[in-house]
Amino acid sequence: MPESLYGKDLICTQEWSMDELVKCLELAEDMQKHRFSPKYTKLLKDRTFFMFFYNPSVRTRQSFECAATELGGHAQYLEPGGMRLKTKKSAGETVEDAAQVMSRYACGMGIRILEDKVAAYGDGDNMLREYAKWSDIPIVSMAHDKYHPCQGLADIMGLRKHIGENLKGKKLLLYWGHGALARSWCSVQEAALLYSRFGMDVTIASPEGYDLDPAVIAATKKNCAENHQKFEIIHDPKAGYSGAHVVYSRNWMSPNAYLNGEFQKPLEIEKALKYTDWICDEAKMKLTDNGLYIHPMPIDRGHEVTDEVASGKRSIIYDVAENRLHVQKAIMALTMSEKYK
Amino acid sequence: MPESLYGKDLICTQEWSMDELVKCLELAEDMQKHRFSPKYTKLLKDRTFFMFFYNPSVRTRQSFECAATELGGHAQYLEPGGMRLKTKKSAGETVEDAAQVMSRYACGMGIRILEDKVAAYGDGDNMLREYAKWSDIPIVSMAHDKYHPCQGLADIMGLRKHIGENLKGKKLLLYWGHGALARSWCSVQEAALLYSRFGMDVTIASPEGYDLDPAVIAATKKNCAENHQKFEIIHDPKAGYSGAHVVYSRNWMSPNAYLNGEFQKPLEIEKALKYTDWICDEAKMKLTDNGLYIHPMPIDRGHEVTDEVASGKRSIIYDVAENRLHVQKAIMALTMSEKYK
Amino acid sequence: MPESLYGKDLICTQEWSMDELVKCLELAEDMQKHRFSPKYTKLLKDRTFFMFFYNPSVRTRQSFECAATELGGHAQYLEPGGMRLKTKKSAGETVEDAAQVMSRYACGMGIRILEDKVAAYGDGDNMLREYAKWSDIPIVSMAHDKYHPCQGLADIMGLRKHIGENLKGKKLLLYWGHGALARSWCSVQEAALLYSRFGMDVTIASPEGYDLDPAVIAATKKNCAENHQKFEIIHDPKAGYSGAHVVYSRNWMSPNAYLNGEFQKPLEIEKALKYTDWICDEAKMKLTDNGLYIHPMPIDRGHEVTDEVASGKRSIIYDVAENRLHVQKAIMALTMSEKYK
Repeated sequence: MPESLYGKDLICTQEWSMDELVKCLELAEDMQKHRFSPKYTKLLKDRTFFMFFYNPSVRTRQSFECAATELGGHAQYLEPGGMRLKTKKSAGETVEDAAQVMSRYACGMGIRILEDKVAAYGDGDNMLREYAKWSDIPIVSMAHDKYHPCQGLADIMGLRKHIGENLKGKKLLLYWGHGALARSWCSVQEAALLYSRFGMDVTIASPEGYDLDPAVIAATKKNCAENHQKFEIIHDPKAGYSGAHVVYSRNWMSPNAYLNGEFQKPLEIEKALKYTDWICDEAKMKLTDNGLYIHPMPIDRGHEVTDEVASGKRSIIYDVAENRLHVQKAIMALTMSEKYK
Repeated sequence: MPESLYGKDLICTQEWSMDELVKCLELAEDMQKHRFSPKYTKLLKDRTFFMFFYNPSVRTRQSFECAATELGGHAQYLEPGGMRLKTKKSAGETVEDAAQVMSRYACGMGIRILEDKVAAYGDGDNMLREYAKWSDIPIVSMAHDKYHPCQGLADIMGLRKHIGENLKGKKLLLYWGHGALARSWCSVQEAALLYSRFGMDVTIASPEGYDLDPAVIAATKKNCAENHQKFEIIHDPKAGYSGAHVVYSRNWMSPNAYLNGEFQKPLEIEKALKYTDWICDEAKMKLTDNGLYIHPMPIDRGHEVTDEVASGKRSIIYDVAENRLHVQKAIMALTMSEKYK
Repeated sequence: MPESLYGKDLICTQEWSMDELVKCLELAEDMQKHRFSPKYTKLLKDRTFFMFFYNPSVRTRQSFECAATELGGHAQYLEPGGMRLKTKKSAGETVEDAAQVMSRYACGMGIRILEDKVAAYGDGDNMLREYAKWSDIPIVSMAHDKYHPCQGLADIMGLRKHIGENLKGKKLLLYWGHGALARSWCSVQEAALLYSRFGMDVTIASPEGYDLDPAVIAATKKNCAENHQKFEIIHDPKAGYSGAHVVYSRNWMSPNAYLNGEFQKPLEIEKALKYTDWICDEAKMKLTDNGLYIHPMPIDRGHEVTDEVASGKRSIIYDVAENRLHVQKAIMALTMSEKYK
């Protein structure tokens, strides 16, 4: 049994021990079974959780606000546009001041910052760590440019349900899909890190020129090695499917996405739309070992994956989306509720 | 006693039986009497209700959010601008995906879509039915281009208080007011349908060129016939007042409002402002049978109605606005609370 | 013991008696000690508080929403942009109608309106009084062009903690800081009025041309006289520090800020940035009587005050910011909860 997680930040799952991650998953699983049980509905009674959305979101906003509600608390939806924070270009409040005051009001804070709201890859991660430095309350990533820990845990919770608790040796294909959205690296990097952590064999497939963060790749390799599993990166749109137990298809931007200090969205989309072979379809899925289909949503259907696969029998996308709620409740309970002190 | 309403959508009152509508009104009336009684404050305890506002709103947002709060739950205020949904023009999430995930999080969902947020009359209604098709949770109209069921029920609750439970044979004048807002048909079509359902005699008065949806008119006629009541459409600004028990004055747009696939707001307003005779005033109200004045608010005072009438003794506008809260609580309780399963 | 405060507006502390203000502070102090005690968490159970933000805000939104949550209620965040209210330029709902309906839904309403959202100094105050005239529920200023009563009470609560309950004869330096934000008069005028009310000796220091509202100055003088304390206005950037027990540094706009019916923000900032001597720094603080540093936040560090002072040992800014929560809970409880009727 790990020590109490009370007060701990969750910026990257790599910074939590396996014991801590499993404790969180087990609590999430019990919270799913006993969703409105009084043992859970008072954990954050009358407490405030701040949700700080630099970028808007569907799933994340809905599931976090819902999580706070189900724990008896309240999530405040905050947009920095309404917050007069100091930026390089304008006068305003420092993170030092903002974070210290927010610590007086709330039991925890979630932050989402990625894509066009950062000027260079890594800026979002730095921002979260700046908040963590000055806050007395836990900071939880609600997706930022580097990681998406809540998505990773929701994925694993889905795999535990559909495959079983022991994921050792199961093969993940992390597959680049073409598309019209120029997506952040956070979900796929999180998946690489966390699935490998849980003992899975990881293959990343993308066209040339879509390398992920080298530090994340190195950490994933290390995770695989520690679990005696294979790790590989390939550039073939089909080969990786062979024998896969889980296929995760998703578009992601190239390492050139932030050239010149700005998010090159139109260029990225134009480039990505050319790789029409890179779509997860039924023919490719037939090459897998009866593989599950997984995606963090929202899905760009017709680009990342066909309707047939996304709405097919082996798709667990809605289960995983639902899990966002349960794992976030577990994270908030463990790190923010005095009952788990 | 009707069967349980648990899980039922409310897109148009015409799709609910009279028994169901009366059950809802009676519960609303009791909820008004015992507003914060423990028998009601736990019906949606810790549950989430999604409010999906394509168009902003005053009353509707305030009253739905308040309703969820008073039932012990929480209403999330969501704007599709922050939701990255798929549209004809942009990549994004399908309603199929969005609705199925939201069903995992929430106990129900309200949707508001009308005016400039639809490209043609009927698109909003289709959108609600698309959500209803994919959702496992009830969809409630918070006003859309065709109907406004909650407003209709709030009106009837007001009439039951001020006239009595038996509305049979009472005369409604549904009166077009000139004005500067180019308003949707939803409230007035709802009124035509629902007041006639409850046995009222219906006269619709407007200048030439302001016909409502022929299908709604046909349904209203049928309702009147079934109740052995009169139905007529007239184009005189005064004649309809004679003998009326209830006057409902409100601007509405013409059937040309969506020519060329766009909401022709400036044209509609320019045209509507010319009919300066079409205002509900004290002189006209004197022709009624001591008629009540009713309006769904917000009122465009000085155009739709004079201050004298709107703030006069026979105006029941604030009571009706208050009723929005009570009927919405009743609708949410009956369709979303496990206690009414 | 004062009479019940139930139903009372709070637009300016000058309109509350000293007994009422002290009652509020004492309750706030107890609420801080017993923050989540059941004696407080049910005071607004299931009730709705409307927050009406003409101007966005950090602290005020966070602390009011948090306050409603901790009292068991819910604060609705409303922006007039989404409210279709009548203005001089556009059709819409009158305050008469809006306020009367809101009174049916909520237990109280907070309004914030200042800076660019008013066309002339005083318009915001008039707006609050218009709402108060038509509402049956208490109206609380969440900062408007003239006053900021919640900030004033939070300040005093901070001073009572760090100096003691008896503030008689303690010297306040209310000090204009240069800066890049062109700030409203509300916080500093509130401070002048309220600190003098509690018996403090008040010195206001600013460059020439930064006079505050003459009516507020006259009331402050009267407060000082009634308490046999000194009041003075000086134009020296250093002299006022001598012997001060509390230094309040803050930028404020000049009386020319609304020339020609518009908020002259760029001109005001350009002018204000020239007075680089006007900053609260360690050298000046050494002239005080071991003075506390106070500021309503957000701070414009490097302009209004140096980092050294703002983050120094005698700075009580975070305590005061926290107090916003407690005093607002106390105000809401006393004026809106039936338990204090």
